[in-house]
Order: sequence, then structure tokens, then C-alpha cells
Amino acid sequence: MMKVGMLGCGVVGSGVKKILDEGKTEAGSDLQLTRILVKEIGEGMDVRFTECADDVLDDPDIDVVVECMGGIEPAGSFVEKALAGGKSVVTSNKKMLAEKAARLYALASEHDVCLLDEAACGGGIPWMANLKRIARIEPVSSFQGIFNGTTNYILSRMEMGGADFQDVLKEAQKLGYAERDPSDDIDGVDAANKVVLSCMQAFGVYMPVSAVETFGIRHIQACDFAWAKSHGLTIRLLGTGENHNHTVSAWVMPAFVKADSLYASISANDNVLVSHSETLGTSAFAAPGAGSLPTAHAVVQDLLDLYEGSGARAAVMPAAVMDQSSVKGRYYVRTVNPAVFDDVKQEDAGDALITREISLMDLCARVQKAADEKLFAGVML
Amino acid sequence: MMKVGMLGCGVVGSGVKKILDEGKTEAGSDLQLTRILVKEIGEGMDVRFTECADDVLDDPDIDVVVECMGGIEPAGSFVEKALAGGKSVVTSNKKMLAEKAARLYALASEHDVCLLDEAACGGGIPWMANLKRIARIEPVSSFQGIFNGTTNYILSRMEMGGADFQDVLKEAQKLGYAERDPSDDIDGVDAANKVVLSCMQAFGVYMPVSAVETFGIRHIQACDFAWAKSHGLTIRLLGTGENHNHTVSAWVMPAFVKADSLYASISANDNVLVSHSETLGTSAFAAPGAGSLPTAHAVVQDLLDLYEGSGARAAVMPAAVMDQSSVKGRYYVRTVNPAVFDDVKQEDAGDALITREISLMDLCARVQKAADEKLFAGVML
Repeated sequence: MMKVGMLGCGVVGSGVKKILDEGKTEAGSDLQLTRILVKEIGEGMDVRFTECADDVLDDPDIDVVVECMGGIEPAGSFVEKALAGGKSVVTSNKKMLAEKAARLYALASEHDVCLLDEAACGGGIPWMANLKRIARIEPVSSFQGIFNGTTNYILSRMEMGGADFQDVLKEAQKLGYAERDPSDDIDGVDAANKVVLSCMQAFGVYMPVSAVETFGIRHIQACDFAWAKSHGLTIRLLGTGENHNHTVSAWVMPAFVKADSLYASISANDNVLVSHSETLGTSAFAAPGAGSLPTAHAVVQDLLDLYEGSGARAAVMPAAVMDQSSVKGRYYVRTVNPAVFDDVKQEDAGDALITREISLMDLCARVQKAADEKLFAGVML
Repeated sequence: MMKVGMLGCGVVGSGVKKILDEGKTEAGSDLQLTRILVKEIGEGMDVRFTECADDVLDDPDIDVVVECMGGIEPAGSFVEKALAGGKSVVTSNKKMLAEKAARLYALASEHDVCLLDEAACGGGIPWMANLKRIARIEPVSSFQGIFNGTTNYILSRMEMGGADFQDVLKEAQKLGYAERDPSDDIDGVDAANKVVLSCMQAFGVYMPVSAVETFGIRHIQACDFAWAKSHGLTIRLLGTGENHNHTVSAWVMPAFVKADSLYASISANDNVLVSHSETLGTSAFAAPGAGSLPTAHAVVQDLLDLYEGSGARAAVMPAAVMDQSSVKGRYYVRTVNPAVFDDVKQEDAGDALITREISLMDLCARVQKAADEKLFAGVML
């Protein structure tokens, strides 16, 4: 029997509660959810609910703490307290973990406990588990994928209908696929957080999210899809990490991909995550990237790893040596100041241009120089 | 340290030898390949090579036997002897295992050893591992996928080029993607073997391969692709297993799928395998379905599971209660005797017809009645 305390009982937490309470398997039945921190205890609610975090964090009977509150604070401080108190932690909170990973892994290592984050990246996709599995045999050389379901929903809707970004965003908000403040999603920050977590698992190094070069889809327009479609392409928001002999590059960017490619086939709010390594080669995992039950399933998988003793102890996470200079591409740029790209322009693309192969660093410098708030850029894959 | 003996050193075996000998990780270095059965020891070859199987099977220092000889015999008898001798076995041999699974799992269980088969299904795809992972939380309700790389290569080449089946098959043989006798691949038998293995892992039951309703691609023609293309579709060979309250249905059949779907995006000799379960929902895994190193990678993953003690003991595998009656579909049929389908025909489809929704059993009965050796049938997805 393993006793579990939980912080937060929203979308993910209520799914975890359902799976643990129903306990459909022998192993699952051995996990007992005993205390749950909620914002407000309503009438007739679960006797395990409490409004006091210390009821979970200070309970000596609780072996493991699940954190699915979201937000950086107070979630981060609660996780710190749990780890310092000798409890392993399972979190679905990518934003908090990407922000505080260096400190939290050090703390977990110091107290010889585990910090697991399968649910923080790719919802139900067993991404962290499979990266860990590959690393038993060989280093992961790179990864790439569609990390954010909200933007993928928006992009696949725009692809279908020729609709405008703002209309589709509003629709997504109405359906609950996008948050009221959608900035983290549409500016690529959520994907960048997940790239940070993936770099930790794949390469064993930590970088702040600011080190991930990030382009979002806030300024995408129907004309970009129209041009893509007329060229047998569509647009997806990709995140990438690469490990070149212990230096790491990482970026998030809209990409123009072939209409019959794996990435194009991932529609609605699904995710797909792809790893590359020497003998396994290319390995792809696709599933809903969010949602209550798939993400909760991932939380429970982490709990079962802990219960079965296969959750690796946390190691202190060294800082990544970043080197973005090797990242190159042909970039699609739509801007009111195209002159900035004149000397690297290869062709026109509707209202935009496509550069010859240049470095990502060169692109970033020119984007800054163009000083166009509404510039939209993507990479040609 | 775990000592490994190997039976066979062909495409898969030579990959296993390379990965184990190079030992790129700490865990990998703890696996020591000490003896290898080969057909003929050539000059200057590895000192570990032997032409005598008992040098592997009777060696008390060898903990685990890897079988990657292919073929039912003598591979099957060698595996029996290894298990009876108290050695765990890792096999990549789907044909042998699908044929002899009932006997072999009983033997493994009796001698309290493991029989692992990650490499036998989907090459490098961590399919068995992930089915096992899901089963920690909930039953797998169904699975479906592209299980055979040879036919997928043929189908994706026909899709591109409008080429004829025979020409593409010859090309595939020249490139080493198809065997000299391609019957097992093109008649769907190889896929059916993998469906049998997947049913064992997903549902914990065994069926003979003859219980899997199997339609191949031997009689596919360019006209079938032409019709598909003109309707925004393409053709893939799918295998499926479903568990309905302890009765199982299983089939292999060409399927007409949307050109922008996940299945359509899997080209060349890649595989994709998809599981369905209650809380995880749909989860898809794609990777090269064959090839020396990816398949060898899967063998080594099984060895590492054994080494780390996470390879589950084999259980006696009960016989499946088969019930194909729930399988229904709209079927595409091209035959010289279309009259047999007159009363269930919904529409014409070029040189073929499409039925209204009928049961698979009804389809099979009519196919038999049509007595057309060159009949081609597929399901509309």
C-alpha cells in the first residue's frame, strides 16, 4: 500500500482521483489517495478535502505528493516542502517545473527522493518513460514534436476552414481548449516549457525557458495557410531539442510541413513527440496532449513507477551548455519591413518571403531589426 | 553482470551483437554476450561463434537466451530447451512464437522464467512495453495498426506512382524489403502473427493465427489506388484486435483510409500501432517496423528489463474465446462475380463495389461463395 496526498483537484486532479478511487487493477488498488488540497471545501464534498496544504505536506503517513495545482506559486513552495520532508513528488505542472527545476532536482537529490513529471509533457503520451527507456541503451540525439494542443487545435481549424486566427481562438476559448489569457499557448511559451522538461529527460541538462528560441502563432493569418495549401503544405507549431556533443540547441517555431506528413496528420488538440537515437532511429508517440483522464493516467503511471521501485532517484541537473549556432533553416517571413531580408531572400511566398538557408541566430537578429510587432515567421521543413 | 547467449546472427542478431559489444551505457555494459549459434563458422570470425546449439543451451553460465533465428523449427525446440533449462528467453521470432505460444508460456511459467517478445512485433516500437504499462492501470480495450513493413512499402509505392503490384513487389525484393517468397507478408500472415502476439500482451489470451480473419494485398491493382485517390483516400494493411467483455475479435485487412490520416502518413516500411483504453484513450506509436538496429534495440530493451528485474514472469496463457460476430464494416470488393454481393451493394467504386454495413462473417461467406481467386477486398474506415 502506498499513501498519496494531492495538491489541487481541478481538471487533472479530479481525473487522478477518479482513477485511484476506482482502482481497476491490483497495482492500482494499492495506491490510496488519503488527503486532497482544494481551494474551497463545498458542502457535501469528499471527506479527504482540506483547505490547508500542511494537512498533506506534514502528514507522516503520506508517502508521495501529487501536485496538479498549476501556476508557479504556491505550487513550487509546496513541492519544495514536500521534497525537503522526504516525500517523492509527481507533478503535472510544466510551468512551475520548467521555472524551478534546478532547485527542485537538487532538493530531491539531497533528500534521496524522486521528482517525476510524465504528466507535465504530452498529456497521456508516455514520453518521459520512453526517453528514459532509450537512455538505457544510448543517448537521445534529438527530439521534435507538437507539444501544445491548444495551438494545434487552432492551426488545424484554420487549415480546414480558411478562418481567421482571432475567430478560431475565440471558438477554442468557448470550447475550453484555450484559456481566457491564451498568451502562454499562442506565444509558444507552454511548448517551450515542455521543451525544457524534455531536454532534462533526454539530455540530462537544465536550461531556463528564456534560452529556448521561441516563435508563436499570435500573428498567423489565413493568407499564410492559403499559401501553404497551394504548395501542398500545412502549418504546425513544433518544439525541438538537439544535443551535439554536450552542447544543446532548442527552439519552438511554426513549421511548414508536407500535407501528407506525420505532423500534418496530427489534428485537433493531439500531440506527437518524436525522438531520434542511434540504433532505435526515429520513434514517434501520438496521443491527446491534454485532457483530464489522459493526463491523470500519466500521473498514475508515475505513481506506479514509484510503487514498483522503478522511478529513478532524482539527480542534480547540471546547466545546459547552449549553442544555437548550428540551427539553420529556410524561413518564411511575413513582415511590413521585408527590406531587412532582401539579401537573404530566395523567393516570394504570397504576402511573405522565404529566405535561403540562414542560421536561426541570423533570423532572430533580422526579426529584431525589422521591429515589426506583427511579423510572422516559420521554418520550411 | 548478466550473461547472454544468442541463437542466430543474421539481420537482427548482428544488430544485437553490435549494441551489446559497444555497450554505450552503464546498464548496457553489464550485459555480456558470451556465445552465439551460427549456421557456419567462417574464417576469422568471432571466437564466440559455435555451430552447436547446445553450446548455448547447456552452458550453465548463460542466464538468458536470445533467439533470432527465424522460422518455426529448430528455433521453437531450442527455445523450449532453454526455458526447460531455467533460462529466460528473449525472441524476435513472431512466426515461431505465434505458433507455439501456448506451449512456451506454460513451460516458462512452470520453470519460473520469462519469455519476452518486444522485438517480435513492430521492430523498434516499444509496443509490448507500453501495452504492459497501460495494463497496470486498466484493460486495453482494442488495438489497431500497420504491422507489416513490407506491405506498407508496397502500398506506399503504389500510392505514389500508380505502379502495378507485381512491379513494386519485384522492386521491393531487389531492395531487400521483401523476401524471395513474399507470401507471409503479402497474404497478411505476418501481420496476423503480430496480431496474435499483441492479443496475448493486450488481453492476456492466446489464439491460433488461423483464428485471425486475414485478407492480404496479393490481388491489389493500380485501379484500386486510382479509385481511392480520386476519393481522397489511400490504402493501408491494418491488423486489429478487440476485447468485448472477455470475447475477442481479430482481423487483418486492407483498409481505405483518409489521405490526411495518421495511417496514411505512415509510409515506406514504417509501422504504427495504436492502443485504446478507458482513461488513456487513443495512444499511437510509430517507428521503423523492421531493420537490424531498431529490432535489435527492442531485443536489448527486453534484456535490460530482465536485468533490472522488471520483466514479468510468464503466465500460462489461456485460450481466447473468439467472437468475430461484432465486427462490421462497409467493404470494398473487386471480383468477377459481383452478383454474389448484389443484395448488399451500396454503390459502385470504379471496377469494384462497396457494400452497405455488413458483418465480417457475412463478407467471408460471400467471398467464399464468389470463388474468385483474384478477389480483392478491403474495409472502408
